[in-house]
Amino acid sequence: MSVSVIILAAGQGKRMRSQLPKVLHKLAGQPLLSHIVTKVRQLTPKQIIIVYGHGGALVSNAIKADDITWVQQKEQLGTGHAVLQALPYLQDNTTTLILVGDVPLINTVTLRELLSTTTNNPLGLITANLDNPTGLGRIIRNSTGSISAIVEEADANSDQLKIKEINTGIIAIQTKHLKKVLPHVKNYNAQKEYYLTDIVSHTINGGDTIATVLAADPIEVIGINDRKQLSYLERAYQIREADRLMEQGVSFCDPNRFDLRGTIKIGQDVYIDANVILEGEITLGDNVIIGPNCYIRDTYISSGVQIFANCVIEEAIIDSQSKIGPFARIRPESKLGKQVHIGNFVEIKKSNIADRSKINHLSYIGDTLIGKNVNVGAGTITCNYDGVNKYQTIIEDNVFIGSDTQLIAPVTIGAGATIGAGTTITKDAPPDKLTLSRVPQKTHLTWKRSIKNPNK
Amino acid sequence: MSVSVIILAAGQGKRMRSQLPKVLHKLAGQPLLSHIVTKVRQLTPKQIIIVYGHGGALVSNAIKADDITWVQQKEQLGTGHAVLQALPYLQDNTTTLILVGDVPLINTVTLRELLSTTTNNPLGLITANLDNPTGLGRIIRNSTGSISAIVEEADANSDQLKIKEINTGIIAIQTKHLKKVLPHVKNYNAQKEYYLTDIVSHTINGGDTIATVLAADPIEVIGINDRKQLSYLERAYQIREADRLMEQGVSFCDPNRFDLRGTIKIGQDVYIDANVILEGEITLGDNVIIGPNCYIRDTYISSGVQIFANCVIEEAIIDSQSKIGPFARIRPESKLGKQVHIGNFVEIKKSNIADRSKINHLSYIGDTLIGKNVNVGAGTITCNYDGVNKYQTIIEDNVFIGSDTQLIAPVTIGAGATIGAGTTITKDAPPDKLTLSRVPQKTHLTWKRSIKNPNK
Amino acid sequence: MSVSVIILAAGQGKRMRSQLPKVLHKLAGQPLLSHIVTKVRQLTPKQIIIVYGHGGALVSNAIKADDITWVQQKEQLGTGHAVLQALPYLQDNTTTLILVGDVPLINTVTLRELLSTTTNNPLGLITANLDNPTGLGRIIRNSTGSISAIVEEADANSDQLKIKEINTGIIAIQTKHLKKVLPHVKNYNAQKEYYLTDIVSHTINGGDTIATVLAADPIEVIGINDRKQLSYLERAYQIREADRLMEQGVSFCDPNRFDLRGTIKIGQDVYIDANVILEGEITLGDNVIIGPNCYIRDTYISSGVQIFANCVIEEAIIDSQSKIGPFARIRPESKLGKQVHIGNFVEIKKSNIADRSKINHLSYIGDTLIGKNVNVGAGTITCNYDGVNKYQTIIEDNVFIGSDTQLIAPVTIGAGATIGAGTTITKDAPPDKLTLSRVPQKTHLTWKRSIKNPNK
Repeated sequence: MSVSVIILAAGQGKRMRSQLPKVLHKLAGQPLLSHIVTKVRQLTPKQIIIVYGHGGALVSNAIKADDITWVQQKEQLGTGHAVLQALPYLQDNTTTLILVGDVPLINTVTLRELLSTTTNNPLGLITANLDNPTGLGRIIRNSTGSISAIVEEADANSDQLKIKEINTGIIAIQTKHLKKVLPHVKNYNAQKEYYLTDIVSHTINGGDTIATVLAADPIEVIGINDRKQLSYLERAYQIREADRLMEQGVSFCDPNRFDLRGTIKIGQDVYIDANVILEGEITLGDNVIIGPNCYIRDTYISSGVQIFANCVIEEAIIDSQSKIGPFARIRPESKLGKQVHIGNFVEIKKSNIADRSKINHLSYIGDTLIGKNVNVGAGTITCNYDGVNKYQTIIEDNVFIGSDTQLIAPVTIGAGATIGAGTTITKDAPPDKLTLSRVPQKTHLTWKRSIKNPNK
Repeated sequence: MSVSVIILAAGQGKRMRSQLPKVLHKLAGQPLLSHIVTKVRQLTPKQIIIVYGHGGALVSNAIKADDITWVQQKEQLGTGHAVLQALPYLQDNTTTLILVGDVPLINTVTLRELLSTTTNNPLGLITANLDNPTGLGRIIRNSTGSISAIVEEADANSDQLKIKEINTGIIAIQTKHLKKVLPHVKNYNAQKEYYLTDIVSHTINGGDTIATVLAADPIEVIGINDRKQLSYLERAYQIREADRLMEQGVSFCDPNRFDLRGTIKIGQDVYIDANVILEGEITLGDNVIIGPNCYIRDTYISSGVQIFANCVIEEAIIDSQSKIGPFARIRPESKLGKQVHIGNFVEIKKSNIADRSKINHLSYIGDTLIGKNVNVGAGTITCNYDGVNKYQTIIEDNVFIGSDTQLIAPVTIGAGATIGAGTTITKDAPPDKLTLSRVPQKTHLTWKRSIKNPNK
Repeated sequence: MSVSVIILAAGQGKRMRSQLPKVLHKLAGQPLLSHIVTKVRQLTPKQIIIVYGHGGALVSNAIKADDITWVQQKEQLGTGHAVLQALPYLQDNTTTLILVGDVPLINTVTLRELLSTTTNNPLGLITANLDNPTGLGRIIRNSTGSISAIVEEADANSDQLKIKEINTGIIAIQTKHLKKVLPHVKNYNAQKEYYLTDIVSHTINGGDTIATVLAADPIEVIGINDRKQLSYLERAYQIREADRLMEQGVSFCDPNRFDLRGTIKIGQDVYIDANVILEGEITLGDNVIIGPNCYIRDTYISSGVQIFANCVIEEAIIDSQSKIGPFARIRPESKLGKQVHIGNFVEIKKSNIADRSKINHLSYIGDTLIGKNVNVGAGTITCNYDGVNKYQTIIEDNVFIGSDTQLIAPVTIGAGATIGAGTTITKDAPPDKLTLSRVPQKTHLTWKRSIKNPNK
């Protein structure tokens, strides 16, 4: 049966102490809500409805997508009330999967298992066994093992408080059944809220059995209520990512000092040193070595590349056997060929650098095309900006740029040209020749250096 | 009743293996002794007496303060002997609070509670329940729950060794009572030392009851005897600081990779990435983002500022919405306006940079005033030093400095001026005009580049 | 009795998912096999035989040494078969110590204890008590405490599975006895492999008692089968190294964020901040301070040196009281004198810098000799390379190099000379004089800066 999804994302999350709605706080670089939407899409549901409330359009703006129906819950009257807002949009003949916007790490395998229970049961829910179930609703089972009730912490007796199996709030329910039972949920409680959980007792009272699926990993069901929980879940997520990569053939100096905030395609025998952060879409080919303290975002790194310590690389493509850093900064729209060397205190921005070219020291290369086998000396600067527009520099194959040269763009250095150290290049330099601007060195015979006052 | 404080700080701490007296070893950037002095001052005591010994004046020099009476313990004859040295300085009609210089994290709330016990009891002490009480004196209680004795590890029988409640050595005692019982303490033991703890049995023998206060958090009472304990307490302290900040609305990528060595005022929705170190007095406004591997000391950072990866910032003031780094180094006495951009491999020293000005690449700006909307090109250097004196550079509003320019101070660049790339500025440049020093570019038609010897 | 060593290093390690043979994977910067060879050499054995197989010559090339006999196991037919290959090379009248190539952290103290058991017993083995013995062979002891059998996990009954004492596979055996029993080992099992462990039952059946030595620390006997175990052992190793250094008088901000990949000689009162990596042979003198995020390899650092945050230093010698960084990069074959200052964004390569000289900002100094009391201004570049050869720069005592100067090597700056800012030095500069190359600064009165199109 096809699936309708409702994600409850209306809560404020007061304990986050934030201007941001809780579901927009980030885990592994993505809003909590995005994690859930990503998982849910893997189920190819017929519809995804997100019930928003606190923060209003902030939430829908953050998660832009055509496949989402946004439903506003104008008053925060409980989870049952939230689902009630979505009810009119639900298609018939579906199973409705109800997820919680602040439980980001639910697994699609677990969700599929949950959905499969609704073939024979009107309602299924995900439970989990937690070492510390404090604060969560306990699952009460009868002698046959079926759920007889869910008891909230506040209502539980001392025996019930010892139960480790808890309700996660994640539910699959035949849509027809949801439409039948939900309107019966009342707000007869201290908070005057409509609790979605009440559909469980309505279902049991109706003579049906509740199916349950136990989450394989407790982090699947942990909800975020404050930033401490968020940081706990962040680390739990990250160590699982590191474990997963190690199983694929990646070595870490310390898997506890690694952060992946996005997705990665990774080869074999990659080595990642301490304190590396990878963001966005990352590809690392075979035998890539990433040195300590590197931050890399949305970058494709081919096999055999070595990134030395303390590099920052964003939106770049780096071909095989290149060596980068230490202290290199590669900015967006940069493309490096094979065996390219980028050294310390070098910034590359929106430039193409062809095979075997080297820029080893203290340079700024922006809006530049560099050919093959070029050597760019220390302190070279492409003057690509006149305060208004950006211009391109072209350096053809086999050029040697002397140190401390300025290349005032737009300008072309012909193939095989040599530029003398300290030159200001203002117009094209011809191929194969030496071009420079230089003033004769003079010594002043009478000038005296200031002398330090020994009394100071 | 007003409070006299005695802090015992005479020990060497042999197991530290250090030239430094133990109480001067640092936790969270501050000597252990300073932590205690800071806590004690919150009690507004009538007097603070520090008994020093090993390391002599090193200790008193490290903790300079007018409110401290320094008393030397010339021979290390035990804690009782140490307090005896302080006795003549104690004012009457006070309660004496005796603290231990190597127990840095005692909480003022606990101390206040301890002091309150001396209203009705001549002597109160702080105890703690430790999972591992090995090596510490055990609290023996009688059937009514009162302390009957403190038994040292060496003297304890197997039942007593199982006791988890330990003596912390932190005592509040009516000063009159202290002066009465302390002289009765003898050194009849193997070490021939006078133990302060003996005043407990003297008090009990005198028919009085000992009051106790249980430390809420075990780290309050952990004493430092070696560097492993010091590092343990450092991490315990730091994770509590991170927890405290998370409760205030700060997010951490990893609270275990954060160090605060000082004090912080922090806004809401601040994000701190991995491996950040904050030292001294720090202010972070709302929505500030601190990238990974940043070290920041004594700096005021206003709301919305972004500090990218790998920055070092000391004694600076950074106004709102500015963007710093990656790889920026801001040195003391620097002040940045709103929406200022400081980019990679840029050093700013003792300079004021007004709103919306940008120094994005590989520059050294020292002793400089920069106006608004200035663009400083890559590789710009203020030549502020002639080997003896430092001179000021002034760059007025709306100036555009071309790349690789040297500004030989003292010099002023007038508002709206443009400086050509590669220029050496030796005198003031007028406003609104283009100023430059440039040699024509020449191409040598006969020069040949050295050729690599293929046999080498 | 003298010792023959056999190290079993033929396994592939499929679960490593690697092109590299398992024993070449690195722990603390060294191949697993190298760790074992280093330990074994401390026993001054008569011979070291390594049985290799998977990866072939890769293994022997990685561990080059004259004292090793390499024996190939052409087919992987089990550990018994592996030792059988080594049998012909074993000298008589020795004790054979058999080690496993993927158990890198075995302690020499434990090995010496094991060897001593063979004075009275034909065979001794190392066992360990593990909290989680899953997957390992259990030690079965009879009522007198002697080993009666080793039962593999697959063959163990539920009582035997509860046994925590496991077989490590590390064996000492009288060589004569080994030659006697090993040929009796058969491959009558599912895998059709010859198991070395079977010599234990052969020995017991022969009426002899098996001696055992319990490993003091479980990490001694942990074998590496996948990268998760490798990372676990890496961290276990590193925290023990940090503990050992703390016992010697070193302070760490966080011992869990420290990596030592090599050997260290260290003075007293050294402070190591977060996230430091030390590789190769390192010496740190008394009172050295290493700032956060530094990577240092094969370097000698004398007393009182301060290395600030984010430095990369390789193969350097740094004399006392020098200050390096932040953001300094010292490359191989560099030697710095006393009280030298190397500042931010400075690269030093293959240069000698004498006492009290300073290179504080954005410079590249390569193939250079710098005398005493020299001040090198910001943006100074030694042009040491013409695309083919490298040349030397000599800067004598007391020179002042103005900012943004290029020194085109080979060139000498005479003692006491001053070089003006922005100069290109092409020939030697005489002592004590001012030398510079400079173009007069000109202002163009009619030139207009491009204006931003407000519609863009």
